[in-house]
Amino acid sequence: MRVSWISRLFGRDEKQVAAPTLPGRRDFAELPRADFAEFTPDLGAFLGQAAYVQLEIFEGLARAVLAAPSVVDKELLTEASARALRKQQALVDVIRDAGLDPADVMTPFAPAIDSFKAATTGSDWWELLVSSYVTGGILEEFFTGLAAGLPAPYAEQVSAILAEPGASDDLAQIVGAGIAADPDLQHRLALWARRLVGDTLLVARSALRGEKDIDHVEPVFTELIAGHSRRLDALGLTA
Amino acid sequence: MRVSWISRLFGRDEKQVAAPTLPGRRDFAELPRADFAEFTPDLGAFLGQAAYVQLEIFEGLARAVLAAPSVVDKELLTEASARALRKQQALVDVIRDAGLDPADVMTPFAPAIDSFKAATTGSDWWELLVSSYVTGGILEEFFTGLAAGLPAPYAEQVSAILAEPGASDDLAQIVGAGIAADPDLQHRLALWARRLVGDTLLVARSALRGEKDIDHVEPVFTELIAGHSRRLDALGLTA
Repeated sequence: MRVSWISRLFGRDEKQVAAPTLPGRRDFAELPRADFAEFTPDLGAFLGQAAYVQLEIFEGLARAVLAAPSVVDKELLTEASARALRKQQALVDVIRDAGLDPADVMTPFAPAIDSFKAATTGSDWWELLVSSYVTGGILEEFFTGLAAGLPAPYAEQVSAILAEPGASDDLAQIVGAGIAADPDLQHRLALWARRLVGDTLLVARSALRGEKDIDHVEPVFTELIAGHSRRLDALGLTA
Repeated sequence: MRVSWISRLFGRDEKQVAAPTLPGRRDFAELPRADFAEFTPDLGAFLGQAAYVQLEIFEGLARAVLAAPSVVDKELLTEASARALRKQQALVDVIRDAGLDPADVMTPFAPAIDSFKAATTGSDWWELLVSSYVTGGILEEFFTGLAAGLPAPYAEQVSAILAEPGASDDLAQIVGAGIAADPDLQHRLALWARRLVGDTLLVARSALRGEKDIDHVEPVFTELIAGHSRRLDALGLTA
């Protein structure tokens, strides 16, 4: 499944990639980490995309607050939203410290990310939560990887911001409980999670600097998908 | 207009209240401040309502972020949302410090405040912004007044939290620019702002402790309406 996502993204024939020597999912954690840093775009482009993606993550969580069926869930998701928003605002502070205008650097990326959001919001609260978990998880890992390639002192600053806890644990708690209680929901959300990955990796791909030859960038995507699989396991879903 | 809101709220005949000796709007600032503190409910009820109302204020701003037509507006409203959310989370921290459960103390007030929200969201982005400005402005002033009647150390803690800047300046900036550019919008939003006040004062009224005899509580509402009028003036609207 992992391999077919990558090959679909890059238009390569699936059979060519699905070599029998590929490691199983459990082996991914032991592979050397791909070096994302060689694909890091320039500072303005990185910060604009990272800040707008974090805004997008916050917006998804805010929607989930609005739609929460109980005050307990609303409160939990509000705290998750607050964490996501602190990260977004911290990135905006970095943009200002770098002498750039937040709206200026975010605007070029807004149309594509807005379309991505529209395609991945889902049809109900559960799908929205899974979307926040899956797309947020992949994109935070992705931008964390790219941040290592920023010039000093930004690499360290941005890495520290992105390493702050986000919404993941709260989302896993709510969705995990829902899935454990309802096998139909588990099935539906597993399919939905699978659908989200392709669109999310396309957003990541578009953020890469330079040539995007499949053999060159595949390790990045392999690593993102491995992280995604681990996060789905934590929910009780299978990638 | 002020007097008719109060009299409608309390079911009193308008003519009885509209005595010619009532001060004009500009004079309200010079009146002694009403003593809200005698109406302060017990700590759990106060904190539950104040935190849920702040959650409601945050939700309105989050909706405004989602619907913002430009990245510049989105960014400005995101900062306003972040401030509102910090205040809400600070109130939740006070609830926890007081040994209470946030969801437990908020839940009793959720149905009425959710209905209020549904009635005051408006039909487009501009009405949503004005609603956040008008209802948030009145209710923050109201809970600030009530906070003085809390036991120590909560009176001081909560007053400090509520005194932090909220969304008001950002909302005034966006709506003021919209109104200045479009007389039709000015007219429509003035009518909308007027409609919001009655529902907002009813939420405030329901939060008061003890008997709610009109002669007794009228100074509180007179002061809230005076503050409302000043905030509308700042937008270029008339109450």
